[in-house]
Amino acid sequence: MANSRRRRIIGVMGGGKVDKETARMATELGRRVAEAGYVLLTGGRPAGVMDAASQGAHQAQGLVIGILPGPDPDDSSAFVDIVIATNLADGRNLINILSSDVVIACPGGAGTLTEVGMAIKNKKPLVLLNFDPGPTVLDAESQGRVIRASTPTEAMAAVQKFMEKIKS
Amino acid sequence: MANSRRRRIIGVMGGGKVDKETARMATELGRRVAEAGYVLLTGGRPAGVMDAASQGAHQAQGLVIGILPGPDPDDSSAFVDIVIATNLADGRNLINILSSDVVIACPGGAGTLTEVGMAIKNKKPLVLLNFDPGPTVLDAESQGRVIRASTPTEAMAAVQKFMEKIKS
Amino acid sequence: MANSRRRRIIGVMGGGKVDKETARMATELGRRVAEAGYVLLTGGRPAGVMDAASQGAHQAQGLVIGILPGPDPDDSSAFVDIVIATNLADGRNLINILSSDVVIACPGGAGTLTEVGMAIKNKKPLVLLNFDPGPTVLDAESQGRVIRASTPTEAMAAVQKFMEKIKS
Amino acid sequence: MANSRRRRIIGVMGGGKVDKETARMATELGRRVAEAGYVLLTGGRPAGVMDAASQGAHQAQGLVIGILPGPDPDDSSAFVDIVIATNLADGRNLINILSSDVVIACPGGAGTLTEVGMAIKNKKPLVLLNFDPGPTVLDAESQGRVIRASTPTEAMAAVQKFMEKIKS
Repeated sequence: MANSRRRRIIGVMGGGKVDKETARMATELGRRVAEAGYVLLTGGRPAGVMDAASQGAHQAQGLVIGILPGPDPDDSSAFVDIVIATNLADGRNLINILSSDVVIACPGGAGTLTEVGMAIKNKKPLVLLNFDPGPTVLDAESQGRVIRASTPTEAMAAVQKFMEKIKS
Repeated sequence: MANSRRRRIIGVMGGGKVDKETARMATELGRRVAEAGYVLLTGGRPAGVMDAASQGAHQAQGLVIGILPGPDPDDSSAFVDIVIATNLADGRNLINILSSDVVIACPGGAGTLTEVGMAIKNKKPLVLLNFDPGPTVLDAESQGRVIRASTPTEAMAAVQKFMEKIKS
Repeated sequence: MANSRRRRIIGVMGGGKVDKETARMATELGRRVAEAGYVLLTGGRPAGVMDAASQGAHQAQGLVIGILPGPDPDDSSAFVDIVIATNLADGRNLINILSSDVVIACPGGAGTLTEVGMAIKNKKPLVLLNFDPGPTVLDAESQGRVIRASTPTEAMAAVQKFMEKIKS
Repeated sequence: MANSRRRRIIGVMGGGKVDKETARMATELGRRVAEAGYVLLTGGRPAGVMDAASQGAHQAQGLVIGILPGPDPDDSSAFVDIVIATNLADGRNLINILSSDVVIACPGGAGTLTEVGMAIKNKKPLVLLNFDPGPTVLDAESQGRVIRASTPTEAMAAVQKFMEKIKS
């Protein structure tokens, strides 16, 4: 008796410190996630891809979930509606992945690399949006569980492709 | 620059196996949480107080968050809107507490006892609704951080009292 | 093909701030755990029952494991030999319980209460050494999974009783 | 007042399913870790690099710590002396990293990739022993926090280099 009416969640991962172009891209991606009717999930902090994507989804009247590394819900991006405070530090990255129906990895550093690894390990559909995690993902990519994209439009096309597979 | 527009969350804890009267009380409590404009958070499973409270909030058009012990979002109560899958087993109990602005403990067993302990430890406002965690809470109670209630009406009055203190 | 040669671990829980008599009792308890040939496991911090029990086991040439709430192994009691750094904050309490063959709860506060709750929930043999967690444990006690003790001697007798059951 | 007498720990990470040559290499590496006087830490399961490295350290009379993903200490490699049971699934990978003074990544898959990411993120000295995590580590490598090796001998030389830096 699975819960079939739960809302579908797209997780957007990426660096806490990013250049302006990446931030712009993340904002557009967040907007597109909301416009497509999905809930946006990020790492919740008021920084980098997390903040930018949340802003985009918020401006498009989407619902935004933030999974914080720390213990205090108030320490979240101002564009997050629902704050989940974990106090697990980087351990919260696994929750980001498990709670998302599809994961999109934007440019980032070692934290984003761990999220990519966890998505592969837990067989979550993964979109790599201008992020290269090296050769470890090649097997999963050849099995159709990883799609590379270079724009938010391509990323959302990949999301839709994955979601059709999930529903069927 | 705290996130002041995030939605306020009331966490309702309690047993996974409860008698009919406790379930009825939890359903009424969930409904009251939603009617008061709060988001309801529970442990997310399709059982006991979690399921009953979620049903009440759902029927009152409230938003329901479920923090699951397992890895699969589909394993949640059908009355949960947003599923956070943790795969932390009982470790997710700490997330339940940290993410709630006020915690209400309904009748339950050892799991509920751990949630009460974590609420006290993390100085979260705590309402004990017909649940007695023994002498360890007496200090916090004397400091005004714990209020005992015997009906959903009394529990919601305690929630409002705590929320006024938080806002001020 | 279970690992039958692993070393047996006794977890000693209790407050981070305790009076002198409790500290003396915890030191004696740690010594007795080591003399009985067990590994001692504590919450690892240089404070309260954790520090005192570690000191006792160390002085008796026992091996001491500390499961730290923070990320830095150096922040441990100087009597800990093997430091496990978790950065899970209070989330590490579950690891304390799961890794212990028998748990002894000394006087403590809300943190100790969560550890008692987790021991009951995960059916770990539990010795209550002058700590009263209220009525929630009564069921487990009537099933023989909880024994009350008022001295280290009584606590170690309870440990031995549990260990004989585990081995058989 | 840091704990300066705690035992130094070398974490050996790598795949749960590996070819015979990788297993042989891991066994030799485990032996070398023990012979150098360090405690060996692995992910604890009776499989792949974890099991092979533990066997090597055990045969050289070293102390072996296993950090298990599951709740039951008995489910560990028979060459593990001290089992830490977490029930955190892949969430235990962060504990592996934080508890190690130096991390060695052997060939593996997505799980090993997450451990590399966490080592970089938490600034742990990292030896890559025939494992390539892609371009994300290049920054840390240029800062001297990552050393590549192609044999256990080279890996242990890198460990010693890092340990001298830590002590000074």
